[in-house]
Amino acid sequence: MKKILSINLFIILLFILSNNALSQNALVFQTDFGLEEPAVASMKGVAYSVSSELKMFDITHEIPKFNIWEAAYRLDQASKYWPTGTVFVNVVDPGVGSERKSVVMKTKTGQFFVSPDNGSLSLVSETLGIDEIREIDEDINRLPGSERSHTFHGRDVYAYTGARLASNQINFEEVGPKIPTKVTSISHPEATIKNNIISGYIPILDTHYGNVWTNISTELFDMLDLNYGESVNVKIHKDKEILFHEKVVYDKSFSGVKIGDPIIYVNDILNIGVAINQGDMAERYKIKASPEMLIEIFK
Amino acid sequence: MKKILSINLFIILLFILSNNALSQNALVFQTDFGLEEPAVASMKGVAYSVSSELKMFDITHEIPKFNIWEAAYRLDQASKYWPTGTVFVNVVDPGVGSERKSVVMKTKTGQFFVSPDNGSLSLVSETLGIDEIREIDEDINRLPGSERSHTFHGRDVYAYTGARLASNQINFEEVGPKIPTKVTSISHPEATIKNNIISGYIPILDTHYGNVWTNISTELFDMLDLNYGESVNVKIHKDKEILFHEKVVYDKSFSGVKIGDPIIYVNDILNIGVAINQGDMAERYKIKASPEMLIEIFK
Amino acid sequence: MKKILSINLFIILLFILSNNALSQNALVFQTDFGLEEPAVASMKGVAYSVSSELKMFDITHEIPKFNIWEAAYRLDQASKYWPTGTVFVNVVDPGVGSERKSVVMKTKTGQFFVSPDNGSLSLVSETLGIDEIREIDEDINRLPGSERSHTFHGRDVYAYTGARLASNQINFEEVGPKIPTKVTSISHPEATIKNNIISGYIPILDTHYGNVWTNISTELFDMLDLNYGESVNVKIHKDKEILFHEKVVYDKSFSGVKIGDPIIYVNDILNIGVAINQGDMAERYKIKASPEMLIEIFK
Repeated sequence: MKKILSINLFIILLFILSNNALSQNALVFQTDFGLEEPAVASMKGVAYSVSSELKMFDITHEIPKFNIWEAAYRLDQASKYWPTGTVFVNVVDPGVGSERKSVVMKTKTGQFFVSPDNGSLSLVSETLGIDEIREIDEDINRLPGSERSHTFHGRDVYAYTGARLASNQINFEEVGPKIPTKVTSISHPEATIKNNIISGYIPILDTHYGNVWTNISTELFDMLDLNYGESVNVKIHKDKEILFHEKVVYDKSFSGVKIGDPIIYVNDILNIGVAINQGDMAERYKIKASPEMLIEIFK
Repeated sequence: MKKILSINLFIILLFILSNNALSQNALVFQTDFGLEEPAVASMKGVAYSVSSELKMFDITHEIPKFNIWEAAYRLDQASKYWPTGTVFVNVVDPGVGSERKSVVMKTKTGQFFVSPDNGSLSLVSETLGIDEIREIDEDINRLPGSERSHTFHGRDVYAYTGARLASNQINFEEVGPKIPTKVTSISHPEATIKNNIISGYIPILDTHYGNVWTNISTELFDMLDLNYGESVNVKIHKDKEILFHEKVVYDKSFSGVKIGDPIIYVNDILNIGVAINQGDMAERYKIKASPEMLIEIFK
Repeated sequence: MKKILSINLFIILLFILSNNALSQNALVFQTDFGLEEPAVASMKGVAYSVSSELKMFDITHEIPKFNIWEAAYRLDQASKYWPTGTVFVNVVDPGVGSERKSVVMKTKTGQFFVSPDNGSLSLVSETLGIDEIREIDEDINRLPGSERSHTFHGRDVYAYTGARLASNQINFEEVGPKIPTKVTSISHPEATIKNNIISGYIPILDTHYGNVWTNISTELFDMLDLNYGESVNVKIHKDKEILFHEKVVYDKSFSGVKIGDPIIYVNDILNIGVAINQGDMAERYKIKASPEMLIEIFK
């Protein structure tokens, strides 16, 4: 009888171990490394060496080189679709080796962001709320044997720490000392409405299609009280140079207008976008993402 | 005794649950979204939130924008290498939000294709055979909270439904109502042989290498009764403009001819291809994929 | 009692089977196929059909077409970050179908490299040491039904064999006959020091950023006895054409110099690199990877 029980306990133990392995959290990478070289593969090799059971995914590795703002935006855009416990490793790090801190930010949603604190966390910190931030203790949380390497913290520190955190080999406290719950932030003005004119700017493009995304929320836009199919003035300018000014149809999705026609719509993160149905709005009107690229919308 | 048995049952139950998780089907994505933005990552985040045990893969995310024909071809090209039960999520959807139906097609091979019914299923439906088609009931099979988003069905409907189907959280019947077993089809003429002249066209390129792929099957080509090392006339033209006309060596693989020489060969999906060994045939002779780009092969 | 024991044994058996599945080795792909077509997806479909439990990763699929040297370099660069047991499938194979051998090389580190023996294994064979090489018996180790396909060994032979090896469906001996422990090698001269002048060449670029990587090891460079912040002469030339000759600061990482300034540093694989902080050194000075692109470093 005793023997049977101990076999049972052994099985249960094995099962729990195995099940634990299965319940590891997702490890999700974002970098500006591109995919033509093994930089990302080296990070994943380090993570896989930490735990072969880790589930790894990618936001993108095509962040324009050194573009911290775009890193911040893409991280914010993607992270809300990943569950509590997900560990994001973000490495857009032009200041690698400088005094910028290496941190892990835990959000109020229970997600973890392993990143240089260089502005990359500007938006997720607002959207998801900061629960606690810890500075990575690089003496402990560093790939053994990588001490001579100083240009690839993404692999030696961030992937390694992220993998250990996602696989529960360290807990959040073991990342390093708690620091004030405040991240380096890139300023990004909010859209406003005044005299029924909505004013905003173009923080980012839907690059692949050339759709123009604004910082105007659906809630703000709804104050114009438009129905699908109605038109509205859309003016995009940089200083005094007007790049686009037309009456544009507001509709649910691109098929609401003819191919080649402009449309104003709610984009997939519930901000207002302006696009050409099956065309490249940004290219045609030379619109770029920039705090100086302003947009006004009015009836 | 009773206690031991119940522990055993508990273990078995846990095991079955865990094992079920392990036996989930592959979820394979194809889109025209590119990888520079988080669109694909958002789809995978939704799928991962449905089930953290899902195994996700990609055909490609570089389908040329809005090119439904190429989506159809690539889907057909790849899907035969994936096993029964695989769930494909195809999103090349220029008509998002229009009247095109959102469907899941089950093939006679037991694979599932989650896609807009816009022509994307033209070829797989023929190659694998249609077992049953169901229209997605978007009231039920939609990411909770995504009701205001109308431009990203790939994430809100297709990834979500595909993930639930692949992880057995819904069965095929729960996708939505059964509809006639017929998909929107893009016409694609078959190659023919007459007076020992094979006539076909160029449905697609092996883009990366610039190899020219035809719609001529190995069976049809074999009717010319050629041996490896023999030459054959290859004429490629658009209307009356002849882009290429040479005697070309037929061989097993590229190394059968010198570097820079043309070759005619059986490609990896067992159709006839024409290429330049280590060169770019399509670019050199300005050959594009098109129903109007005709090819004749004769002795 | 007997019955309980047999249930136990059944559970243990099931568990071991499941656990075995979990302990499969990583399967890591590298090709020059690009990602715009389903070639990589077909390889992964074949591997997934071999075992749905395989964990698959990618080094890169952007090796410049037919560039065996770069394949060799990237394989060497990435593989050291993956654990014992990892199976690499390398397919940069301009000679597909020629007399080049298809092999699996086991290294002294216990990693496996499935590849054409065309020079791709030049560097890993030196870095990791060869334990044993076996020629793939393509009669046995070939995707069933692929006999008519002669241009895609990557899918039909390499992915299939790699997947079966990584999932323990065949052991190393079953790959095929043992052959001499020697691979086809591309010559790559070593850097030297003479009269305090270090002479080397540019075997590869950190393409994405345009950083220039040398074949000079940290150990050799250390013989110049430089401290961080000190400057050193860096001369890069091709024959008599001098492309770059400046005194360059040696520092730990890019932030040691101003944006736009050159720096000499230890790169992430512990060789010496020359770069411009947030600039593209290779493009600015027209430096390419080539055995003829020579570099001298002296005080």
